Amino acid sequence: MTIVDIHGHVSAPDKLYAWKANLLSHRGAHGLRPPALSDDAIREAYLAPNDSFGNISHLAHIDGAGVDIQLLSPRPYQAMHSERPAAIVRAFTEEVNNVIHRSCELFPGRFRGIAGLPQSPDLKVEEWVGELRRAVTELGFVGANLNPDPYEGLQVPPALGERYWYPLYEALVELNVPAIIHSAGCRPPTREPYSLHFIQEETVAVWSLLSSNVFKDFPDLKIVVTHGGGAIPYQVGRFLPSGVRSGATPYLDKLRLLYFDTCLYTRDAIELLLKTVGVDRALFGTEKPGTGSQIDPETGRWFDDIHLLIDDIDWLTTEQREALLHGNAQSLFKL
Amino acid sequence: MTIVDIHGHVSAPDKLYAWKANLLSHRGAHGLRPPALSDDAIREAYLAPNDSFGNISHLAHIDGAGVDIQLLSPRPYQAMHSERPAAIVRAFTEEVNNVIHRSCELFPGRFRGIAGLPQSPDLKVEEWVGELRRAVTELGFVGANLNPDPYEGLQVPPALGERYWYPLYEALVELNVPAIIHSAGCRPPTREPYSLHFIQEETVAVWSLLSSNVFKDFPDLKIVVTHGGGAIPYQVGRFLPSGVRSGATPYLDKLRLLYFDTCLYTRDAIELLLKTVGVDRALFGTEKPGTGSQIDPETGRWFDDIHLLIDDIDWLTTEQREALLHGNAQSLFKL
Repeated sequence: MTIVDIHGHVSAPDKLYAWKANLLSHRGAHGLRPPALSDDAIREAYLAPNDSFGNISHLAHIDGAGVDIQLLSPRPYQAMHSERPAAIVRAFTEEVNNVIHRSCELFPGRFRGIAGLPQSPDLKVEEWVGELRRAVTELGFVGANLNPDPYEGLQVPPALGERYWYPLYEALVELNVPAIIHSAGCRPPTREPYSLHFIQEETVAVWSLLSSNVFKDFPDLKIVVTHGGGAIPYQVGRFLPSGVRSGATPYLDKLRLLYFDTCLYTRDAIELLLKTVGVDRALFGTEKPGTGSQIDPETGRWFDDIHLLIDDIDWLTTEQREALLHGNAQSLFKL
Repeated sequence: MTIVDIHGHVSAPDKLYAWKANLLSHRGAHGLRPPALSDDAIREAYLAPNDSFGNISHLAHIDGAGVDIQLLSPRPYQAMHSERPAAIVRAFTEEVNNVIHRSCELFPGRFRGIAGLPQSPDLKVEEWVGELRRAVTELGFVGANLNPDPYEGLQVPPALGERYWYPLYEALVELNVPAIIHSAGCRPPTREPYSLHFIQEETVAVWSLLSSNVFKDFPDLKIVVTHGGGAIPYQVGRFLPSGVRSGATPYLDKLRLLYFDTCLYTRDAIELLLKTVGVDRALFGTEKPGTGSQIDPETGRWFDDIHLLIDDIDWLTTEQREALLHGNAQSLFKL
C-alpha cells in the first residue's frame, strides 16, 4: 500500500550546521552568505549511516518502513527562531528551505517540501510570509511549519487565536497550503527540553485555535497538529463539560476542524487518537529518522515503525487504512 | 464496594472568598485576620445546591457516585501562590486548611484533609514546610498539594528535580505523607487558562521528577500526579527510545515510581492510563464537584461519574477494581 509520511525532517551535511554555529558566534559580522553545498554532499546526507539514528541512513529508514513519499521540513530544534539579530534567523531559514528543495530534486518523487518560516519575534508576521510565498510559488513546497512559540520559552507569545497571526493565516489560505504545528527549541531547557516543549506547544495550539475565531474567520484554513495533538486527545474529557455548559459546538466536533499526525510510538496512543478525532482527521507521520529511531529490544522493531503499530490495529477497515496511510495526506497536501 | 476519591476540593462559604478578594485589594493593609465562619455556614457549603456544579450539592455529588471517603484539598485555582506580599498567601492558605479541617470534623468519616502549602516564591521552601507540619501533626491531614509552578506562569520556576524543592521532600518523607501534584492559577491566561495549566504542569512534573535524582535521594517519597499525569501516558512512546539508548531504567518502569489519579472523564483515556502505569499505580479521583460536574446530554451521566467509566472497563478483575477504587488509596494515605 502506498505510504505518505507527513512528518519527516531534512537531513543535511554538517557544513550547514557548522555555518549555523558560525552565525551564532559572529551574529552576522562575517556576513550571511551560506556555504556552498555540493549535490553529492546533500545526497550523502540521506545515504550515509547516521549514528544518531541507529546507524542506518535516512533513506534506509524510510525504505525499511515502506514510505513512498515523505514530507520534509526543517529539523525543528535547529530552527533558532529566538536568536538575534533576526537577519541570522532569516538567512538560516532560507538556506534550510533551499536544502530541502534540493533534497526533493535529488531524490525525484521521494520527498516534498514543507517550509520553515523565519519566525523571529523581531520580524513582522508579514515578513515571514515572504518566505512562505517563495517556498510555495518558487520551490514547489506543499505546506509550512508553524511554531506557536517564536520566543522559544523566553516569554509568553501571542496565542494562535490572536490577530497577530492573521497575516500568516491569510497567506496560507491564499496559497492554499496547510500549516503544520511544530515548535522549535526551548530556553531554558531545565524543566522543558525541546522535545517536551513540542508536546506542550501542541496542547496549547489546539486549545488556542479551538477557543478562538480562527476557523470562523478562515474557514478554508488547514492546520495539522503533530505528535498526535500533544495532550489533547487523552485529556479531551476535560473540555467536553464546558462545551455543553456554554452551548458551544461540542468539543469532539471542534477537534475535527484540525488534522493530527500519528507520530506517537505506542499502539494504545494511536488507537486513542483515531477513536477521538476520527480516522479521516489523522495522517500517517513517523518523524523518521528522529526521536524514535532506536530498536526496541523487547520487540526487535524500531520504535518509530509506526506502520507496524497501525498494522496491529485490527478494527481499521481497508478504506480507513488507505485514508490514514496516504489518502488523507494526498488530498490535504494535493500530492 | 468502598470508594475512596483522592481528588476532591474544599467547598466553603462565600465569606471566605470575599475575604480573599479583600486581601487582594488591601494587600494586608487591613490586617490578615480571617472572617468568622460558623459551623452552619461551612456545613451549608456542602449541603446547598451549587449552580456552578449542575445545581446539586457537594454531598449529593459524592453520594450519587457512591464515594465513601473523599480527600479534600484547597480549590487549586484559588490558591494565589504568586500574589504579593507573601503574608497574604500564607494567611489565606492557613485559613483554607482550617476550613478543610473543620469540614472533616463536621462530616465525620466522610473527608480527610490534604494541605495547601503557602507556596509563595518569596518564602523559603522551609517556610512552606511549617504549614505542612501543622496540617499533618495538628490537623490530622494525610497529604499535601504540591504546585510545581509557584509563579503561576509569570516566570520559569525551578524544575522539581532541583535541590530547591528538597526541604519539602525531606519533610514529606519525615512526616510520611504523599504529595499530590496540582498547580494553581496561570497568569496571563490567554494561551493557557488555569485548567490547561494543570495539565501542562503535570506533564512537566512527571518529566522533571523522572529525569532527576529525586527518587534516588528520597526512595520513600510518594508522589501522586493528578489528571492522569497530564500528557505523559499518551506520549510515553516518545520517552522510551532515549531510555534504551542511554541504558537507563526503562521509562515504563520509571513511571511506576509515581502514582496517578483517574481524573480524566473518558473511558478510553482511563484505559490508556491503567495499561500504561499499571492498576497498582492508579488511584480513583473525580474532582467532584468540579470541571466535570455537568450532565452529558448523550449519556445522561455526569461527565465526572468516573466510577461508571471504570465499571465499563470489562477487563479489570475484582481485585484490580478494589485496588483502584479504594485499596491503593487506603494504603498510600494510610486511611
